[in-house]
Amino acid sequence: MPSIDPETLTDFTVKVLKAVGSSDEESRVVADHLVLANLYGVDSHGVIRIPEYIDEIEHGRMKTKTSPKLVKETKITGVIDAQFGYGQVAAKMAMDLAIKKAQEHGIGGVTVFNCGHTGRIGAYPVMAAKKDMIGLFFVKGGGGGVSPYGGTTGYLGTSPFSFAVPTGTGEPMFADFATSVSSEGKIRVIMSKGMKTPAGWLLNKEGKPTTDPADLYSGGTILPFGAHKGYAMNLLVEALGGALSGGGIAEEFVGANGIFAQAINVEFFVPLSEFKANIDSLVKKLRSTPPQEGFTEVMVPGDPEYREMAKRKKSGIAINEKIWSEIVKAAEKYHVAIPPT
Amino acid sequence: MPSIDPETLTDFTVKVLKAVGSSDEESRVVADHLVLANLYGVDSHGVIRIPEYIDEIEHGRMKTKTSPKLVKETKITGVIDAQFGYGQVAAKMAMDLAIKKAQEHGIGGVTVFNCGHTGRIGAYPVMAAKKDMIGLFFVKGGGGGVSPYGGTTGYLGTSPFSFAVPTGTGEPMFADFATSVSSEGKIRVIMSKGMKTPAGWLLNKEGKPTTDPADLYSGGTILPFGAHKGYAMNLLVEALGGALSGGGIAEEFVGANGIFAQAINVEFFVPLSEFKANIDSLVKKLRSTPPQEGFTEVMVPGDPEYREMAKRKKSGIAINEKIWSEIVKAAEKYHVAIPPT
Repeated sequence: MPSIDPETLTDFTVKVLKAVGSSDEESRVVADHLVLANLYGVDSHGVIRIPEYIDEIEHGRMKTKTSPKLVKETKITGVIDAQFGYGQVAAKMAMDLAIKKAQEHGIGGVTVFNCGHTGRIGAYPVMAAKKDMIGLFFVKGGGGGVSPYGGTTGYLGTSPFSFAVPTGTGEPMFADFATSVSSEGKIRVIMSKGMKTPAGWLLNKEGKPTTDPADLYSGGTILPFGAHKGYAMNLLVEALGGALSGGGIAEEFVGANGIFAQAINVEFFVPLSEFKANIDSLVKKLRSTPPQEGFTEVMVPGDPEYREMAKRKKSGIAINEKIWSEIVKAAEKYHVAIPPT
Repeated sequence: MPSIDPETLTDFTVKVLKAVGSSDEESRVVADHLVLANLYGVDSHGVIRIPEYIDEIEHGRMKTKTSPKLVKETKITGVIDAQFGYGQVAAKMAMDLAIKKAQEHGIGGVTVFNCGHTGRIGAYPVMAAKKDMIGLFFVKGGGGGVSPYGGTTGYLGTSPFSFAVPTGTGEPMFADFATSVSSEGKIRVIMSKGMKTPAGWLLNKEGKPTTDPADLYSGGTILPFGAHKGYAMNLLVEALGGALSGGGIAEEFVGANGIFAQAINVEFFVPLSEFKANIDSLVKKLRSTPPQEGFTEVMVPGDPEYREMAKRKKSGIAINEKIWSEIVKAAEKYHVAIPPT
């Protein structure tokens, strides 16, 4: 399996993105984002996306050298038209703006519409947590595939949600997850390995439970996570990321993403030191909890990513042979030199 | 089973609460809240709570004739010390304040600490939805009992979350749920019926999976809902309802509740008519989805409650014999006349 150090992979990604017409800033923001996803072990949202983004650019669905435009603003709210540019650029701008407003007024909330793929959405609320704020981030993505609780039609998106909380010692606690029981990408990976999906994940086109991942791609659907509770969360993301952003709703919403990004400034409510001491105490307790059978330890959200990063910073980022060859093919088309692996 | 019309039950509850020392306003707010829970079919959060509240008042853990005090305020944020009074009074005040701030500035966020039992928490975000806002409500309750994902110690609370979204036609869509797989009250009901809890709900004191509800009350724990995703949601509620409110964290947090209430004014982001049209279209689609085997139809969050209310408004509220006799006993102690059932 090709392995590559993060700096080299980032430089290479910047060059590829520039070669397809992206601005210096776009290339840098997106390359940093993708490689960080790989470092965190979230390979489904890393450089694997390069060929997909190039395809979207070539077909005019995503635009380069495009600046997100702030079309509506008040002291604590903002609305951004991403103009079909890179999602990472608009999402970062939205969270930066929410943070700025929260710094001054306590809370900031910003929506984005006409937005490209936002990548690994844990990245954005962490920006707030690093400024001593709680960050919340809701994304309504294009397309459907997720059935409502008790239903058989895939009207809903995988509608992910992420949040981050500042801690006193160490990195922010953060979580990001689809409000479906699994992301579509994970099911694709299971299928590519010839494996079965766990019970409770999928329905086939007749609306019956199935463990064959291929059923999803012939009219089947993914179930919401956590039964009626995850279904409710999914609808909240539809409301905030879809309807509130002006992007649209359910499966009518196609071709671009909608976002609601929020920052909550801890100091406006409680002394920061007290907040952090509480969170640190909780984290310490959770990590020292005796594990259940089948677990070796208890982690807090974000732990797996931080650990994987520590490993990969030393070992380099290993990339699946097939995926690397697709990236190489895309890069060669634009005459970008391929780094040694 | 005794059955009683809502008006009579409300008047009776007001009289009981006044007899134990509550002010006119406290008695009215709490009685309306409890009876609405019964009307909605959420009997676990209805008048069943009267003896419990009286007990808390008698033992000085909850105080009557107490006004929640706004101890910190900015244009869009607020911090309320509930002074150990009724949770319903402080929670209503918090959401009213968040709505007022959101009306003027787009978003309002208010925390509460030293707060009594908040009752059925779906009630509060619906106040925002009725003013054309999205309402969010996070509660960190006293005590533990919920184990972290992969762990065996019940450090965490059942930490519930609720939200509501305005619709164009009909009542707001709303959901409220514990971030544990079940509330403690539901497990108590299963035990009282001599039934087993479903697999995946409980661990016994050795940290092994069990379906015996009694195990919860001898050192066992409740699992988070939706595996690692519900665990993450639970920690977000700890952060917002516990640490941000200043109430405390995890199982150290005892004797009172902490709240984070938020209102998001739709008009600051997108035209209200467009938002409502999107939500209405989604709701209509979801309700017309063909159901899975074992379901007769697809509902949206709030549907079960609204339906039950329509029924109970006609039929009256039926109350379990044993529960009614406990309420009667408490009322008689304070010389309140018992209404005919």
